Amino acid sequence: MSLNPQYEEIGKGFVQQYYAIFDDPANRANVVNFYSATDSFMTFEGHQIQGATKILEKVQSLSFQKITRVITTVDSQPTFDGGVLINVLGRLQCDDDPPHAFSQVFVLKANAGTFFVAHDIFRLNIHNSA
Amino acid sequence: MSLNPQYEEIGKGFVQQYYAIFDDPANRANVVNFYSATDSFMTFEGHQIQGATKILEKVQSLSFQKITRVITTVDSQPTFDGGVLINVLGRLQCDDDPPHAFSQVFVLKANAGTFFVAHDIFRLNIHNSA
Repeated sequence: MSLNPQYEEIGKGFVQQYYAIFDDPANRANVVNFYSATDSFMTFEGHQIQGATKILEKVQSLSFQKITRVITTVDSQPTFDGGVLINVLGRLQCDDDPPHAFSQVFVLKANAGTFFVAHDIFRLNIHNSA
Repeated sequence: MSLNPQYEEIGKGFVQQYYAIFDDPANRANVVNFYSATDSFMTFEGHQIQGATKILEKVQSLSFQKITRVITTVDSQPTFDGGVLINVLGRLQCDDDPPHAFSQVFVLKANAGTFFVAHDIFRLNIHNSA
């Protein structure tokens, strides 16, 4: 496996697809399909989770319904194993909460002609609203 | 190679060491030693660079001297090839500019008993100061 020259399109396409599912309360649980049963790591606001089952539990425990999201930047890089590293910065608003800046890092890993999320680190940048 | 159980310490230690060098104008050019001649990618404010020589040129082209930096969060995850994914959020102030939030993602790759920076994505979150 080597560098995927389509990393930019893969990164942007993934981000669009992922948040379209995540931000729709009726559809949110389906993000679990992006993760591997064993080989996916998520760090959600500093809380570390491994594997699709626990990731789904975390996603289903989120209490907000509607998310209004603005993506500011998507920076992607190809990895030498054929995957893509993605850094997303933006702002989001959950239900009627005040809007917050957020940061989310994904590492997509190639597997049998498709990709799964091997790494996911999410943070609300609360301090930035100060 | 497999998961490195020390990923948390490696991530925090690297971040401390990297910024101690980067933030010191007399020492800044030495960050080049963290990168590989060919296998390192940097995305600096959306500008994509590959390899230590070009990364050094970029670092040396930065016009500010003093950097005052506050690290807010460091989230690390182990990668299955023995490396570490690190997401850093914080605030920095260059010389007498106003302070800005920043985001920096590193992927450290293990090589011959040490690590190099395989991926580096840096962004000032200008929009967050709005």
